[in-house]
Amino acid sequence: MPVLLSPEQAPDLPSLLNAANTAGLEYTLPNPEAAAQLRVRGLGSLTSAQSAEVSFLSNPRLSDQLLSTQAGAVVLTPADWEQLQANTATPAFVPVLCPQPYVMYALLAQWFDQHRIQNLPAGIHPTAVVHPEAKIGAGVSIGPFSVIEAGAQIGDHTRIGPHCVVGAGTVLGQANLLHAGVTLYHNVVVGSRCIFHSGAVLGADGFGFAPAPDKSGAWVKIAQLGQVIIGDDVEIGANTTVDRGALEATRIGNGVKLDNQIMIGHNVQVGDHTAMAACVGVAGSTRIGQRCTIGGAAMLSGHLVLGDDVHISGGTAVTSNISAPGRYTGVFPHAEHRDWQRNAAVLSQLSTLRQRLRKLENK
Amino acid sequence: MPVLLSPEQAPDLPSLLNAANTAGLEYTLPNPEAAAQLRVRGLGSLTSAQSAEVSFLSNPRLSDQLLSTQAGAVVLTPADWEQLQANTATPAFVPVLCPQPYVMYALLAQWFDQHRIQNLPAGIHPTAVVHPEAKIGAGVSIGPFSVIEAGAQIGDHTRIGPHCVVGAGTVLGQANLLHAGVTLYHNVVVGSRCIFHSGAVLGADGFGFAPAPDKSGAWVKIAQLGQVIIGDDVEIGANTTVDRGALEATRIGNGVKLDNQIMIGHNVQVGDHTAMAACVGVAGSTRIGQRCTIGGAAMLSGHLVLGDDVHISGGTAVTSNISAPGRYTGVFPHAEHRDWQRNAAVLSQLSTLRQRLRKLENK
Amino acid sequence: MPVLLSPEQAPDLPSLLNAANTAGLEYTLPNPEAAAQLRVRGLGSLTSAQSAEVSFLSNPRLSDQLLSTQAGAVVLTPADWEQLQANTATPAFVPVLCPQPYVMYALLAQWFDQHRIQNLPAGIHPTAVVHPEAKIGAGVSIGPFSVIEAGAQIGDHTRIGPHCVVGAGTVLGQANLLHAGVTLYHNVVVGSRCIFHSGAVLGADGFGFAPAPDKSGAWVKIAQLGQVIIGDDVEIGANTTVDRGALEATRIGNGVKLDNQIMIGHNVQVGDHTAMAACVGVAGSTRIGQRCTIGGAAMLSGHLVLGDDVHISGGTAVTSNISAPGRYTGVFPHAEHRDWQRNAAVLSQLSTLRQRLRKLENK
Repeated sequence: MPVLLSPEQAPDLPSLLNAANTAGLEYTLPNPEAAAQLRVRGLGSLTSAQSAEVSFLSNPRLSDQLLSTQAGAVVLTPADWEQLQANTATPAFVPVLCPQPYVMYALLAQWFDQHRIQNLPAGIHPTAVVHPEAKIGAGVSIGPFSVIEAGAQIGDHTRIGPHCVVGAGTVLGQANLLHAGVTLYHNVVVGSRCIFHSGAVLGADGFGFAPAPDKSGAWVKIAQLGQVIIGDDVEIGANTTVDRGALEATRIGNGVKLDNQIMIGHNVQVGDHTAMAACVGVAGSTRIGQRCTIGGAAMLSGHLVLGDDVHISGGTAVTSNISAPGRYTGVFPHAEHRDWQRNAAVLSQLSTLRQRLRKLENK
Repeated sequence: MPVLLSPEQAPDLPSLLNAANTAGLEYTLPNPEAAAQLRVRGLGSLTSAQSAEVSFLSNPRLSDQLLSTQAGAVVLTPADWEQLQANTATPAFVPVLCPQPYVMYALLAQWFDQHRIQNLPAGIHPTAVVHPEAKIGAGVSIGPFSVIEAGAQIGDHTRIGPHCVVGAGTVLGQANLLHAGVTLYHNVVVGSRCIFHSGAVLGADGFGFAPAPDKSGAWVKIAQLGQVIIGDDVEIGANTTVDRGALEATRIGNGVKLDNQIMIGHNVQVGDHTAMAACVGVAGSTRIGQRCTIGGAAMLSGHLVLGDDVHISGGTAVTSNISAPGRYTGVFPHAEHRDWQRNAAVLSQLSTLRQRLRKLENK
Repeated sequence: MPVLLSPEQAPDLPSLLNAANTAGLEYTLPNPEAAAQLRVRGLGSLTSAQSAEVSFLSNPRLSDQLLSTQAGAVVLTPADWEQLQANTATPAFVPVLCPQPYVMYALLAQWFDQHRIQNLPAGIHPTAVVHPEAKIGAGVSIGPFSVIEAGAQIGDHTRIGPHCVVGAGTVLGQANLLHAGVTLYHNVVVGSRCIFHSGAVLGADGFGFAPAPDKSGAWVKIAQLGQVIIGDDVEIGANTTVDRGALEATRIGNGVKLDNQIMIGHNVQVGDHTAMAACVGVAGSTRIGQRCTIGGAAMLSGHLVLGDDVHISGGTAVTSNISAPGRYTGVFPHAEHRDWQRNAAVLSQLSTLRQRLRKLENK
């Protein structure tokens, strides 16, 4: 971890766990004296953590690394701890026993990140252009050169980085974090506790055109009058785009997580807690259920319906509805180029191949 | 539709149609008295429009919605209107009979969007940095923190949002609209009436490198000295990139529509009225004809030639020339993961499968 | 080439070659008198170059163009020159004989581009916001509205365009070029002589979440505490994103070239001199060797290892490790839509097709 707390800032392990464990996870410290003496300056993986850092074991296949880790403390399950003690002499690290080490790691990482962010400047930078008819809540920070247009509303404790635009009539709830260079067009609605990364664009026009009546091949733009409505606790990655609806809204549910460079077309609906990896494209009017996962670079055609708990593998093109929960895939496997050439050439004959097989079978 | 006109701003239906129908579409109002009394505050779909909103029927399969719509008026074809009257009692809405309801909807939506945009501030924002050697036309607006470099030219009535860059020597025609955060490098040429969305980047260097003469594996940059030349009436989506040519120009024809997150490589040529959905990539020097459509996430290799009226399905990789008009596809269909695994495993044996079949046939 | 030097600025050919050939390439001028008289104002292809421009022949298949080119001078191999003289009367252009015409062209293009860039304004623009605790080297230029945060370091002669952000604690080496609108988050480390294009985002959070302990389907964010570390001579294209590591660093080696709209996930490692074409996605923790090339729109799954000198064709999904050098491909070939439909339908039966074939063989 590149930025460590100074030794004076570093909390002792019990205090850190107490402060970071906002989810109320159960945990025990079998060695409370050593824990109280450990001042924690950062986090690290089992192979890289140093003596003032906490590490964790979430994948049992990596339990060998417990024998050699330099970490000052390790979060691990009671079962892994028991097994370690059965196989080896007492390890050098301070154990933190927790049934969910990965969640505890997430909470610890949030604590360290918060510490960093609290060092950032607060308030409205003098260069920001805030329209007199915008409503700015308490404890809001707005970075240099950001633009807040007429009728925009910024909820309490929302932080906005440099070079952001909050368009006319756009409403942001509380405690959102907009990194540098986020652009929200007009009449976008955002819940609370969202995180938007640099280059994200919410509310650009959906892609709608009617063929010109003169049959010249030209296109008549369909102005996009709808909204983008984002729930609470949504994270949107760098350079991801969510287009506004044609007449109604493009809707992103609560707790949705979108990675970088994702494209959400107009009128799309994404259900609560669905997560998409980078480079996914979702074409217009498609509805995705709750708790789905969409692998990287997957592509969903327009006007589809995907049910809840549907999991799409990376690189898959989804071109028809999927109602049943489960995992779905459609990827051409890679091979050495010559082998691929040889086999790909047969693809254009698959149908006749089947006919020839039938003919043989009917002999 | 989120933003309605106030009742005082709302025009009556005949006036609205008269003002919006800039394409000279034919239409009739069978019930002129009711039409004159309807004050229109917005647009909506058949299922969502309210009594002060206009809706439309462009897909005959949705004609059932005419029976229950709450819309104040509906644009529909004379044939659909006749059929409705044959099947049902007089509907509650005011009919607007037009052979091209979808185009009329497009024009009405443009009218409402124009109304919104006319409310935006005009003029050059005091924070904008405009080089004294730039030429700025009449009625130009430039948003906060935009930068207009030396030798740039901005045609009359072009509107530029906040955080835009118009590079040295770049020329914009008349009545263009650049949303927030559009970056035009130096020596880009843009026609008139174009719309560029946030995060679009035109004129970045094409991807050109020569292997270093020392055979170290290093690359020598080929500086990209060409231009980007954009026609009239072009729309370019959010975070789309169009690279400058190596020596000559990358050219985007008149009336081309590019959705979000599209990548156009250097020296590419795109013919008039071609439209591309989001996430398409076009590699360097490929030439695409007129009136083509390229589906979302399709990929075109470099140095290809596609003729006019070629239609590429979403997700298709095009790796060779296509001269004949028509629709072309190449997508691995998705399936349940286990089924896919079972079938994909055979892909690496297709060539031998064919040989085995031949052997049986020759028995 | 759109921007020519004025006749007064134009160097004679021997002086130009002397100034541009920073790589020490061998070359000869068989006609030194004519060379000395040629004043070079720009570069062009064989088919477009004018009499004051230099062109080059790097692809022998285009040697016919030597007969009709209007170029004032042409860089070509001694062998091509010999063959030309055997087949034809003395050509009109001044020959420059060089075993590596493409590299010489690259160097000449760099020279012309440098000339353009030296005309750009230097120094720190008065609107830039530079934190008093940032360290700014000698000869640094910073464009309008750029933001340099606390603890950032900018090495000598680095040029930063408008609307850039250099985050807290981020370190840039010498002679880097950041075009307009590049965003570097906190604690990013960049070597020297890198070029970053508009819209590039380095250091946004990697995509890491733990399932919430309440099993609601919600996600707990794993704050990303690692870094992005970029080597020397790296070029990063427009709207490309490189995420920061979860605990350690995402690393881009020396001489790596990334085209536009590429996504590099957290903890990825890219070896020296590897080049990726546009729209590639690399998922988290994947390690790519040296001197690899990744074709456009290829997708690499997470946690993979690719060895040195691996070449991936455009559009290929790589879902397993590749250790041996060579070319690898996995693309569904495009076809006319009906043919594709007919053949794609058989894909879901490949496994049973093989079984039926076996059955026949065992008869």
